[in-house]
Amino acid sequence: MPLNPVDDALIAKLRAALPAPAFRNVSAGYLEEPRGRWAGQAGVLVAPQTVEEVSALLQLAAEARVPVVPYGGGTGLVGGQIASDGPAPILLSLERMSRIRAVYPQENILIAEAGAILADVHAAADEADRLYPLTIAAKGSARVGGLLATNAGGVNVLRYGNARDLCLGLEAVLPDGQVWHGLRRLRKDNMGYDLRNLLIGSEGTLGVITAAALMLHPKPASEGTAMMSVTGPEAALNLLAMARDHLGEGISAFELMHRMGLDFLSEALPDVKQPFEDKPEWMVLIDVGLAKGLDPATALEGLFSQAFEAGLVQDGIIAQSEAQRAELWAVRETIPEANRRIGSVSSHDISVPLSAIPEFITKANASLAHLGPFRINCFGHVGDGNLHYNVFPPKGGSRNTYTDLRDAIKRTVHDEVHALGGSVSAEHGVGRLKVEDLERYGDPVKLAAMRALKQALDPGGIMNPGAVLRR
Amino acid sequence: MPLNPVDDALIAKLRAALPAPAFRNVSAGYLEEPRGRWAGQAGVLVAPQTVEEVSALLQLAAEARVPVVPYGGGTGLVGGQIASDGPAPILLSLERMSRIRAVYPQENILIAEAGAILADVHAAADEADRLYPLTIAAKGSARVGGLLATNAGGVNVLRYGNARDLCLGLEAVLPDGQVWHGLRRLRKDNMGYDLRNLLIGSEGTLGVITAAALMLHPKPASEGTAMMSVTGPEAALNLLAMARDHLGEGISAFELMHRMGLDFLSEALPDVKQPFEDKPEWMVLIDVGLAKGLDPATALEGLFSQAFEAGLVQDGIIAQSEAQRAELWAVRETIPEANRRIGSVSSHDISVPLSAIPEFITKANASLAHLGPFRINCFGHVGDGNLHYNVFPPKGGSRNTYTDLRDAIKRTVHDEVHALGGSVSAEHGVGRLKVEDLERYGDPVKLAAMRALKQALDPGGIMNPGAVLRR
Repeated sequence: MPLNPVDDALIAKLRAALPAPAFRNVSAGYLEEPRGRWAGQAGVLVAPQTVEEVSALLQLAAEARVPVVPYGGGTGLVGGQIASDGPAPILLSLERMSRIRAVYPQENILIAEAGAILADVHAAADEADRLYPLTIAAKGSARVGGLLATNAGGVNVLRYGNARDLCLGLEAVLPDGQVWHGLRRLRKDNMGYDLRNLLIGSEGTLGVITAAALMLHPKPASEGTAMMSVTGPEAALNLLAMARDHLGEGISAFELMHRMGLDFLSEALPDVKQPFEDKPEWMVLIDVGLAKGLDPATALEGLFSQAFEAGLVQDGIIAQSEAQRAELWAVRETIPEANRRIGSVSSHDISVPLSAIPEFITKANASLAHLGPFRINCFGHVGDGNLHYNVFPPKGGSRNTYTDLRDAIKRTVHDEVHALGGSVSAEHGVGRLKVEDLERYGDPVKLAAMRALKQALDPGGIMNPGAVLRR
Repeated sequence: MPLNPVDDALIAKLRAALPAPAFRNVSAGYLEEPRGRWAGQAGVLVAPQTVEEVSALLQLAAEARVPVVPYGGGTGLVGGQIASDGPAPILLSLERMSRIRAVYPQENILIAEAGAILADVHAAADEADRLYPLTIAAKGSARVGGLLATNAGGVNVLRYGNARDLCLGLEAVLPDGQVWHGLRRLRKDNMGYDLRNLLIGSEGTLGVITAAALMLHPKPASEGTAMMSVTGPEAALNLLAMARDHLGEGISAFELMHRMGLDFLSEALPDVKQPFEDKPEWMVLIDVGLAKGLDPATALEGLFSQAFEAGLVQDGIIAQSEAQRAELWAVRETIPEANRRIGSVSSHDISVPLSAIPEFITKANASLAHLGPFRINCFGHVGDGNLHYNVFPPKGGSRNTYTDLRDAIKRTVHDEVHALGGSVSAEHGVGRLKVEDLERYGDPVKLAAMRALKQALDPGGIMNPGAVLRR
């Protein structure tokens, strides 16, 4: 059965069911996404303030067979929040459900509504002397619901897991408007199928998350940061293994960067302080958070010495102050902005098995060299096998020159990833950008199961149609 | 449509499709479960050796509409592996798929077939200088497929998570016989819905897990153990928070025990060495695994001093050798055997939010005192909010005297758990034992969603019928 666009009759019913402040003007921001690939459309923008209001909205949408596109912070990079075609949908923004409902320091749990901004969750945890470790560059805008709907990752997954691993319970509205009260504060709960993890990562296509029980962690007693130049990706992996042997879970982040990232900073953001006098070909940024009785600088110095003797590292900077830690992290965290300013031809959020990283980089670089004189900025969360492998025009060139090659580049990179048993969507999700990739590279039996699950929970197909699965 | 029992025609087809060694005699062990509540039935016992054989079996079963009951190590405590009524099923044992297919030390990943025994997984990880941290008392018999199908827990969940958290990928056969090749070795992979976690914990009702990519961890550089007497459950929780502030993730296990456990050991297993001269009312067993540079005994002594000053602990034993560590753990690990010998009237595997533990124990003890002169042995994984709250006859009495009260006891305990936002199945699963409890205490919207998911993936209803969901 086809879906219908939002019409005046439905808007009248929505206005009768929800209070006036829930209705907002559709400003341009809601219809744009960070990389400017699509322009969205919205028949109406509704921002409920309670789970009951979300429920009423979904009941009306289901009856009228009108699409609903859930909207969090709008920072998603795969177009999951943008309905660029099809019948005009209800844009369901969670921005007015932004409360931290409760913090339980003894239990290491925080209950946040789906519209809570990640930075506010960090602050609330911090106030209770706890840590909510999930963090991404967009933390000032990204909201809890979107982070869970896309199973967000970031730099601390190595130690603490991704959004999925840090969630104990959900409150959610299913596509027929029924409310699942699943805000459990339990570490162990084997009462039936894992509906929580089915909703997490489903990108708004199976229901709307309205609140979550998030897992907190004790804060490390002390933290430290180092940047070390390594002989290559293989050395980086050996250094990671050495670091984990030394410090166990104490390794909070382990980021690989290529010299191209430093070159891009020099080119696009010259005010950012360069860490090395001579830019190394490859380097890693290591963050540690240690228990009482251990000193981070001493531990990192010990690691450097051992790694130097083993021929893995040549040069290193161990932060001696919080200010120096911030300087080192600023290098890593401004690379995405430098990338944006230079303008990529094609960006890839991929993962491969850890031991396949060196082979992937060698092969992908070689294959792309056949396609054109591209500059490649490869960086990312190497401890998770997750690389942002981004392809740029040669210096002085423009991305527009190479638009025709974009599909070939993407296909080349994704084919290499797939051949090595990797994922063409490591942490950003499928959204609308990678629906075709999922069909091409995804397991066909899993895809058929996904379609059956979608049909079971959303038989009318109203939830975020066109995202993840083809409409 | 009704299901059919296994008949000669189906057995003939199975024998034509699978090699002769796959067919085994149904010895009594396959039809018993550890607590002797049910007697199972099996029309035929089949033990395939490859995923293709499992696939062929399920295709034939689906065509014939004959139930299939997957069978791992047979150690489950809720009757998930026992079909006590309904049409005689195919008992599908994974015992001949017991290989460790590969170990990737650099990636911290091990690929095991579903029939691999947990102790063998431990050994294979150890050989690669890595740790597979999931461990339960039945590790010598329990198999990987059953551990995942029931999302097993155990003593190390506090630090490393449960079976779900330690699995990166699955190979599984869906109810129509199709094979999902999902043995991914990726820490980050957001390509579509989380079919992995839907199968994990579904207790064989949505498909058959045939192999898994398991997450390994670095081994701690050094380990230590202490037993400390505490003033009560509240003090135990405060001690846990203090310990985690001190040692972060270094706390591997944190078990609460009541004096009754020591009394039961004296009564039923007098050869087990008692840890304290005077049995304390409450005590905790703490295991730490630390990074290089920290000494476990020193760390535990520091913790004890601070906790003593804070009035949380009175007495303590800090193991000075591996032998002493083993002695302390033997106390904890033989309590279940003492329980079995004494014979409980009713056993409960429950969890509540951490901060509700003291209230739960006080209330449940008081309510049960109204029902009869029971002895209560309450112990368990307090860091996970998971207690084994087991109810026994008075000394010298027999469980048989109180059989009539079993339902009332269970109901009383579960009502208290439910009122506090807890789970009546923390780590053992639903199986056949708790189907009614799931209906009574489970969220009705989640239950409806579960039924829809079951219908979507297993429309014929052949997979482990009667487990988790009522037939």
